[in-house]
Amino acid sequence: MDFIHCNENAIYYECGYSNDNCIYLSLGSDTYLITDSRYTLDATTSLQESAPDTEVVIDMDLSKRAAKLISQSKVKKINFDPKEWDYYRITKIQERTRLKWVTKIDLSHIKRIVKSEDEILLLEKAVKQGARAFRDFAMMIDDEGVGKSEKALHFLAQNFMRRFGKNDLSFDPIVAIGANAAKPHAHPTDRILEEGDLLLFDAGLKHKRYCSDRTRTVRVREGFVFNKKQKFGSKKLQRAYDAVLKAHDKQIEKAASGMRAKEIDHIGREIIDKAGFGKYFIHSTGHGVGLDIHEMPYISTRSKTKIKDGMVYTIEPGIYIPDEFGIRIEDMVVMEEGRARVL
Amino acid sequence: MDFIHCNENAIYYECGYSNDNCIYLSLGSDTYLITDSRYTLDATTSLQESAPDTEVVIDMDLSKRAAKLISQSKVKKINFDPKEWDYYRITKIQERTRLKWVTKIDLSHIKRIVKSEDEILLLEKAVKQGARAFRDFAMMIDDEGVGKSEKALHFLAQNFMRRFGKNDLSFDPIVAIGANAAKPHAHPTDRILEEGDLLLFDAGLKHKRYCSDRTRTVRVREGFVFNKKQKFGSKKLQRAYDAVLKAHDKQIEKAASGMRAKEIDHIGREIIDKAGFGKYFIHSTGHGVGLDIHEMPYISTRSKTKIKDGMVYTIEPGIYIPDEFGIRIEDMVVMEEGRARVL
Repeated sequence: MDFIHCNENAIYYECGYSNDNCIYLSLGSDTYLITDSRYTLDATTSLQESAPDTEVVIDMDLSKRAAKLISQSKVKKINFDPKEWDYYRITKIQERTRLKWVTKIDLSHIKRIVKSEDEILLLEKAVKQGARAFRDFAMMIDDEGVGKSEKALHFLAQNFMRRFGKNDLSFDPIVAIGANAAKPHAHPTDRILEEGDLLLFDAGLKHKRYCSDRTRTVRVREGFVFNKKQKFGSKKLQRAYDAVLKAHDKQIEKAASGMRAKEIDHIGREIIDKAGFGKYFIHSTGHGVGLDIHEMPYISTRSKTKIKDGMVYTIEPGIYIPDEFGIRIEDMVVMEEGRARVL
Repeated sequence: MDFIHCNENAIYYECGYSNDNCIYLSLGSDTYLITDSRYTLDATTSLQESAPDTEVVIDMDLSKRAAKLISQSKVKKINFDPKEWDYYRITKIQERTRLKWVTKIDLSHIKRIVKSEDEILLLEKAVKQGARAFRDFAMMIDDEGVGKSEKALHFLAQNFMRRFGKNDLSFDPIVAIGANAAKPHAHPTDRILEEGDLLLFDAGLKHKRYCSDRTRTVRVREGFVFNKKQKFGSKKLQRAYDAVLKAHDKQIEKAASGMRAKEIDHIGREIIDKAGFGKYFIHSTGHGVGLDIHEMPYISTRSKTKIKDGMVYTIEPGIYIPDEFGIRIEDMVVMEEGRARVL
């Protein structure tokens, strides 16, 4: 299949290299990485290692050069992902060529849905480093977190998740106290953390470009850690927490290769429904994780994707009661020998 | 003019509010902000203040709803910026409507090229806060920076520029030592800062969404600060530095409303040419700054944009000699009463 990419992760997946200004072309048996002269050395050195057959092409005008390479090839039609390209850039290339352009939604993500062994090792390492950052962050909060605002904790969370410069974030962490946690994408406020508060922490980091993702909801008390055993003061909160944890655990326990993604979603939704909180589970169960923080498979009520060995995704059921509290428990799993293993 | 936006800053400019999932429509005398239910409260509260005539429309499927609102209106043609939209999203809306779609490149940026008094105040505040962060960062380096790697300094720079959680970054800071500074967009390496090294620091922050941008190139010595008076050990380096500084100063001194942007670029390029470094000034002189870090006017060799009072842009000439050194000196200016004032 002949195709064109501009997304960094899509390109990295093809050839093991990318930068913030490049186009990747696969035309028949030829592959090209087009970039500008700032990256000549970087690109040639990297590709020599990772994809020696891919030709590095240096040009100021990437789009024009891409169009030229396409026109010079014998290719009759070319695939592109319309979600990946801005309208201006892709139409500029299209106008300069005469072949057939075929839209292939999620072209790269579809290829990446099943991870290789190497990718799983990288994801596992990312998750382990992320877990360590969670532990260190908890120790800091235990030491001196009470009295700090969400904003201050959010800033510190970024530094802990980046392991003070060693890693990039896979997304901006969510730090939410009490009722603020009821917004699944809470922005940090001036609310002050107090002893006994519910704290929701959702964060991930990147290891060699592969993402981690994890959420814990805890009661902040002397010596607390970000684990899944939590005792809250309020009965309603405890019931909701137990329902989320049960959903999370059962979904992981019962997930099996060959199932449809929506079946996994259903397992959790049923448990939360039965506990009486169904209408407060307002999002999907999970999403694939890889080079992008959100990839296939999507574990949602409608997803017919067939679960296969090698897929890596999150299980993250939640309950969000406006003005009261929000709970989410999230782990990343990999499908191996038909079952889900927590990373 | 009827138009549609999805870019956050374009939307914020129109109605004083935006979030990460919204579409803005201006149809005849009606304006709409379409967003999803997570943002109902945020959007209605904010718009009541900032744009009470704009109707908040809540929908799960923003594109579909936008198409419906467009179809229901009497509008015959609608403008969109093809750089702002991904191909998938805009064509989905277009397919659902029957009117004429007109591409207007830089639709929002063109409107925003001349800043209001309020905007200039915000930009000035951003620059002042940025300058303070530069000062604090220098003090830290003076105290304990020698012996740290570019990577470690880069991490610290992010925290200083964010003023430890008070501000967002306007872009990822550049911290480059010696020959590494010869790459205009250097990535931090493991190179260790030593006493006497050249250090290039390019960084900015956001104040109420408005960006600052500044670069200094200094020799790191006891008590150094990020100012423009610098004495280097090497003669060649000093000659280059003096040429950049002279270019920078003359460009600011001679910039006048009514000139073409390329004339300002030429002033600096001529000075650097005469000093014998012309071929090492490998980028444009500057760019506008506002809600986006890169806006109009672009101060480049080809830009015919007429400079006007109220425009805010950077003056940042540079010299980059591969494997030797890189120098850039950058300030933001505002055009007032025909002249450039440094912010």
